[in-house]
Amino acid sequence: MVWGCVTDFFTYETTKSVVVKSWSVGIVNRIVQLFIITYFVGWVFIYEKAYQVSDTGIESSVMTKVKGYGYHHNRVMDVADYVFPQQGAAVFCIITKLILTENQFQGKCAESMTQFSCNTDEDCASYYGSYLSNGVITGVCLKEGNDSRGQCEIEGWCPAEKETKIKPMLDVKNFTIFIKNSIRFPLFNVIRGNFPSTMTSAEIKSCTYHPEKRPFCPIFRVGDVLNFTGQTVEDLANKGGEIGINIEWKCNLDLNIEKCVPRYSFTRLDAPFAKNAVSKGFNFRFAKYFKTENGTEFRTLHKAFAIRFDVMVTGKAGKFDTIPTLINLVAAFTSIGLGTVICDVILLNFLKGAEQYKAKKFEEVSEAQIEASLPQSPETPLSLKTGIKSSYDSGAISLSTSDQPI
Amino acid sequence: MVWGCVTDFFTYETTKSVVVKSWSVGIVNRIVQLFIITYFVGWVFIYEKAYQVSDTGIESSVMTKVKGYGYHHNRVMDVADYVFPQQGAAVFCIITKLILTENQFQGKCAESMTQFSCNTDEDCASYYGSYLSNGVITGVCLKEGNDSRGQCEIEGWCPAEKETKIKPMLDVKNFTIFIKNSIRFPLFNVIRGNFPSTMTSAEIKSCTYHPEKRPFCPIFRVGDVLNFTGQTVEDLANKGGEIGINIEWKCNLDLNIEKCVPRYSFTRLDAPFAKNAVSKGFNFRFAKYFKTENGTEFRTLHKAFAIRFDVMVTGKAGKFDTIPTLINLVAAFTSIGLGTVICDVILLNFLKGAEQYKAKKFEEVSEAQIEASLPQSPETPLSLKTGIKSSYDSGAISLSTSDQPI
Amino acid sequence: MVWGCVTDFFTYETTKSVVVKSWSVGIVNRIVQLFIITYFVGWVFIYEKAYQVSDTGIESSVMTKVKGYGYHHNRVMDVADYVFPQQGAAVFCIITKLILTENQFQGKCAESMTQFSCNTDEDCASYYGSYLSNGVITGVCLKEGNDSRGQCEIEGWCPAEKETKIKPMLDVKNFTIFIKNSIRFPLFNVIRGNFPSTMTSAEIKSCTYHPEKRPFCPIFRVGDVLNFTGQTVEDLANKGGEIGINIEWKCNLDLNIEKCVPRYSFTRLDAPFAKNAVSKGFNFRFAKYFKTENGTEFRTLHKAFAIRFDVMVTGKAGKFDTIPTLINLVAAFTSIGLGTVICDVILLNFLKGAEQYKAKKFEEVSEAQIEASLPQSPETPLSLKTGIKSSYDSGAISLSTSDQPI
Repeated sequence: MVWGCVTDFFTYETTKSVVVKSWSVGIVNRIVQLFIITYFVGWVFIYEKAYQVSDTGIESSVMTKVKGYGYHHNRVMDVADYVFPQQGAAVFCIITKLILTENQFQGKCAESMTQFSCNTDEDCASYYGSYLSNGVITGVCLKEGNDSRGQCEIEGWCPAEKETKIKPMLDVKNFTIFIKNSIRFPLFNVIRGNFPSTMTSAEIKSCTYHPEKRPFCPIFRVGDVLNFTGQTVEDLANKGGEIGINIEWKCNLDLNIEKCVPRYSFTRLDAPFAKNAVSKGFNFRFAKYFKTENGTEFRTLHKAFAIRFDVMVTGKAGKFDTIPTLINLVAAFTSIGLGTVICDVILLNFLKGAEQYKAKKFEEVSEAQIEASLPQSPETPLSLKTGIKSSYDSGAISLSTSDQPI
Repeated sequence: MVWGCVTDFFTYETTKSVVVKSWSVGIVNRIVQLFIITYFVGWVFIYEKAYQVSDTGIESSVMTKVKGYGYHHNRVMDVADYVFPQQGAAVFCIITKLILTENQFQGKCAESMTQFSCNTDEDCASYYGSYLSNGVITGVCLKEGNDSRGQCEIEGWCPAEKETKIKPMLDVKNFTIFIKNSIRFPLFNVIRGNFPSTMTSAEIKSCTYHPEKRPFCPIFRVGDVLNFTGQTVEDLANKGGEIGINIEWKCNLDLNIEKCVPRYSFTRLDAPFAKNAVSKGFNFRFAKYFKTENGTEFRTLHKAFAIRFDVMVTGKAGKFDTIPTLINLVAAFTSIGLGTVICDVILLNFLKGAEQYKAKKFEEVSEAQIEASLPQSPETPLSLKTGIKSSYDSGAISLSTSDQPI
Repeated sequence: MVWGCVTDFFTYETTKSVVVKSWSVGIVNRIVQLFIITYFVGWVFIYEKAYQVSDTGIESSVMTKVKGYGYHHNRVMDVADYVFPQQGAAVFCIITKLILTENQFQGKCAESMTQFSCNTDEDCASYYGSYLSNGVITGVCLKEGNDSRGQCEIEGWCPAEKETKIKPMLDVKNFTIFIKNSIRFPLFNVIRGNFPSTMTSAEIKSCTYHPEKRPFCPIFRVGDVLNFTGQTVEDLANKGGEIGINIEWKCNLDLNIEKCVPRYSFTRLDAPFAKNAVSKGFNFRFAKYFKTENGTEFRTLHKAFAIRFDVMVTGKAGKFDTIPTLINLVAAFTSIGLGTVICDVILLNFLKGAEQYKAKKFEEVSEAQIEASLPQSPETPLSLKTGIKSSYDSGAISLSTSDQPI
C-alpha cells in the first residue's frame, strides 16, 4: 500500500501532444514565436533592461562654492556679501539687487507706499490688519504741513522701506559656481563623485562647463547656466528667479563603473508659474542689526532680489539580478506559448480539414457515456482501455506537484 | 536529410485535450475563471493600475514667503526679524518667543542656573566639562557678600543666559505662508506647479487655503495649519514645535495633465517623540554681534523658540507602459489556467465516474510495457499504433521552441 | 442552436496526459521540482521577500542640536558662535578654525597674496578679472618705500585677507550632536522616531551612541563619528571636511512595528574626490557687519574651516501585498513546469525505449492524412473516431476563455 504510494509519486506526467505536419500552420507558428522572441529580447531585455534590479533611492551630498566680484551701490560685493546662505549648501542664492533701508529704528512713521495714502483717520482704519504695509497700521493719517492728502501711520521699523529703481549687479553673469557632488546608491553601495578622479587640480581650476566640450567640468559660469535655460541675465538679475541645476546619474553597473557619470541639465524652476502674473521672480528680506552708543538697536533692512540655484540630484542605477531576470524570462517563455492560441484558431477554423484536426485534438467524454459505462463497470470496452485502476495520481496530488500547465 | 529537418521544424505541436461534456464541472470551471478574471480586471488593473510604470523619483523645488507683523518685547517684529533662514527655503522657522541676553562680553562670571550652585570650589570642580552650563566651568565658587551658598564661575560670554518667563508672540496665528512648489517627474518629463495656471494674481493674493473650499490656494494661515494638526497656537508658540506640510502629488498621466494636482496634509513632526519627555518643542540659539567704540566685540544672545515648518514633497506618477502590462497580462492568463487544477480535483475525485474520467485523461505507459515491446520491435501492436518512426521532434527541439506549456 | 452554444460553453477542457511509470524519469522529475521549489521558497520568498510591496519614498524630518564649548582665538566659543546655520537643520557645519580679517572697509589696498606681486602696473593689468584675488584688480602696482617689487592694488573690502596659521579648535571632538529624526512611509502611513518611546529623558540625556552597546542613543560624540569614518580630528579640524551621517530605515512591516528601527552609518563624503588634489577639506566665508559712529559700514571677514555634517535619511519598508505575491507565485508555479522540459529531453532521447515513449506522447497528423480523409468524409475510420461533429468549441472561444495553457 505504502509502496504503491511511493511508486505513484515517482511517476512522470507529460502532456500528450498532437503534432500537425502542415506547412501553413507550421510557418505561422514559427513566425509568431519569432516575433514574440524578438520583442522580448529587443525591447524588454536590451532596451528596458528588465533583467536588472534598479535602485532609485540615491543618497547625495552637494557642496557649492561661488566666486566672483561685482559692483553694486558703489561698492565691491564679494562672496560673503552676496551669497546666501554662506556655507555652500545645495540651495543657495546669489543676490543681484539690493534695496537698502538704512538706520531703521522701532517707532511710528508714515507708510511709504502710495496705496496707503489717506484723507482722514477713518481711511487708515480700513487697512487695520493689512500685511501689505511695512508695519502695523495704527489708524492715524499723517499729513505734512497743509497737504489735504497724507499717508497712514505705521508702527514698527521706521522709516518704511521705499521701492526704488536701482541697476542690478550684472557682473553676476561672470561669477562661477563650483559644484562638488558625491552620491551613493545604497542598494549596491556604489559611491561616485561628479568629476573623474583622473582630473587634475589644474584642470578643474581652469575649466568651465560646456555640455559637449567639457561635460564633466564642475565649474559653471552663471551666464552660461542662465543661457542654457533660455533666460537673459538682465531679466533675472532685476527681478530674481529660480534656476534648477539637475544632476542626473543613470548608471548601468553591469558596465565599467567609470561609465557611471553625471549629466547636467538646467531649468527655470518658476516656469510652471509663468502664466500666473503673481510673484514673478524671487526676493526676500533680511536685516543687519547695529547698536548705537547708548545701546539702542537699529538695523539696515535689505530687500534682496536674488537668483536662487537649486542643485537637485536624481539617479537610478541598475544591476543584473536573478529575480527580475527569472520573472521576465518566465513571462517571455509563457508568452511564446501565446503563439499556440493563434495557431489553434487557424488550425481548427480556417484550414482545410479543420474538422479532422478538431477530431484529433479534442477527445470528447460526455456524462451520458460515463453513466452508460458505470453499471456494468469492468466489462465495458471503455474500462478495458483504461488499466489505471490502481492510479492514485489524483488531481489533489497534481495540484501540489503542478504537472499541469498552469 | 536536411529537408527532413526543415519539415520537422515547420510542424506545429498542440496539446491533445479531453473535452468533458459535464454540466457540473463545466459550470465550476467557468465560475472559477470568472472569479479570476474579475480579480485581475478589478483589483490588479483598475484599482492597483498594474498596467502602468510609475515614477517615484520626484524632483521638487520649494520657495516659501511668510507675511505678518507681531508684537514681542514691546517691538513690532517683521519677517526679517522672525523668519529663519530668511531666504525662503523649504525648511524654515517662525520665531515665536525670544529670550534675550544682551551685552554679553567674553569673560568670567557666575553661572545663572540653580543646578550649578555651590558651597566650595570642590563642588564646582565636580562639574568640569559639563555642557549644560552656559560656559566653561572654571572650578571656582563665586559668593556674594556673606552668603554661604554661591554659584559656580563660568568662562565664556558673560553675563550668563537666564531662563525668564515671557509671553510668546501669539500674533503668529495670523501670519500667512505662501508656498511655491514646482515639481518634475524625470521619467516622464512632466513639470507641474502647485497652483493652477488659470489662477489670477488677484485670486492668489486674496485666498487662504481651505481643504475643501480652496484646496489649491497656496497661501496658508499659520493658525489654520496648527489646527489641522490638532495643536493649539498657545502651546506651540511657547515651547516651539515642528510642523510638517506635506505636498503629495499622485498623478495618473494617462488622464488629462490638469488632473495632476497637489494634495496638502499637515502633521506634527515631533509626534513620534510625544511619549518621551525629552526635548519637547523646538528651540535654538543665535547671536547678533556688535562692537564697542574701542573695537571690543559683544553680542546679544537669542534663545529662540520657534515653530519649524518642513515643506515635504512626495509624489508618484503612473503612465501606461507595455512591460508591466504584458507581465501582468501573462500572469493573469496563466492564473486563469489555475482553474483547471481545481476542476481536475473535482473531476477526478468527486464526480460520479471519476475512474472513467481518469482513464480518459491519463494514458499510462510503464517501463514493463516498453521493455516488453522492445525486442520484437516493429511487430508489437504498440509500435503499430505509432507511425512516427521518422520523427525528429525530440525534446531538445521542444525546449528551444517552447511548444510545451512551461 | 442557442442551447447547443450554451452546452458547448459549459464544457470543461483539460489536457490529455501521458503518465510514465518509470523510476528514472520520475525521480529526475521530482528532484528538479524540489530544486525549483527550494529556490523560490528560500531565495525569492524568504530572502528577497518577493511577496511584499515596498515603499522607498520615505518622508523624513531631521532636527539637530550641538552642545559643547571650545577655545579659539583666546575666546570661549559656544553653539551660537560655531554652528552654522544655527537653527538645527539636517545639514550643518561646526566651525573648527576661523581666519579673521577685522575692520574691513570698502576702499583700495594692496593684495595680500604673493601670487599678485608686481614690478609694474602692466604686471597687474594681466590679472584683470581674476577671481583668485581678494578684490577687483585695479591694474595699479603698489610699492612701499623704495621696494622694486610691490603688490597689485585691489578694490573692495580692505585690508585683504591674509592666510595665517592658527591652531584649530580641537575641543570639537568632545562636542555632542543630538539628532531627532521622524520619518513616515507614505504608502503604509507608518510614522517612526529615531529613539524608542520607552527611552526616558534621563537615559537620552546621559547616553552616547555606540554601534553595539547603545545603537539607539540619539546623541553622537563628534570624535566618535570621525573615528567611525576613519578620520582623525586633527586633520579634519584643520582643513575642514564633510561627514555623512546616514540613518537607514529598513522595515519589515509584517513584523512588530517596534522592530522598525534606524541604523546609523558614517562616511566621509569627500571620499570620491580623495584622488583629486583640488578643494580638499571644506571652508566658506561669512562676515559680521558693524557701523562706525558716523555710519560707515565695516565688517569682520571670517574664513571658516568647518566640518559639515549631512544627516541623510534613506529607507525602505516592505509589507505583504497580493499583487507581487500572486505574480511571483505564478512565476514559481510556471517555473516548476520547466522541469517537464528537462524530463522530456531525457525521456524522449536518452531512455531505453525512447521511440516508444515518443510514440505515446506525440500523435501525428499530416496534411496528407487529412486530405485523404476529406472526400469520402463520414465513412472514413478517422471521422468515425471523432464524434465531435457538433463541437463549437473552436480556437476562437478557446482564446477568450484560455483553456489552453498559455
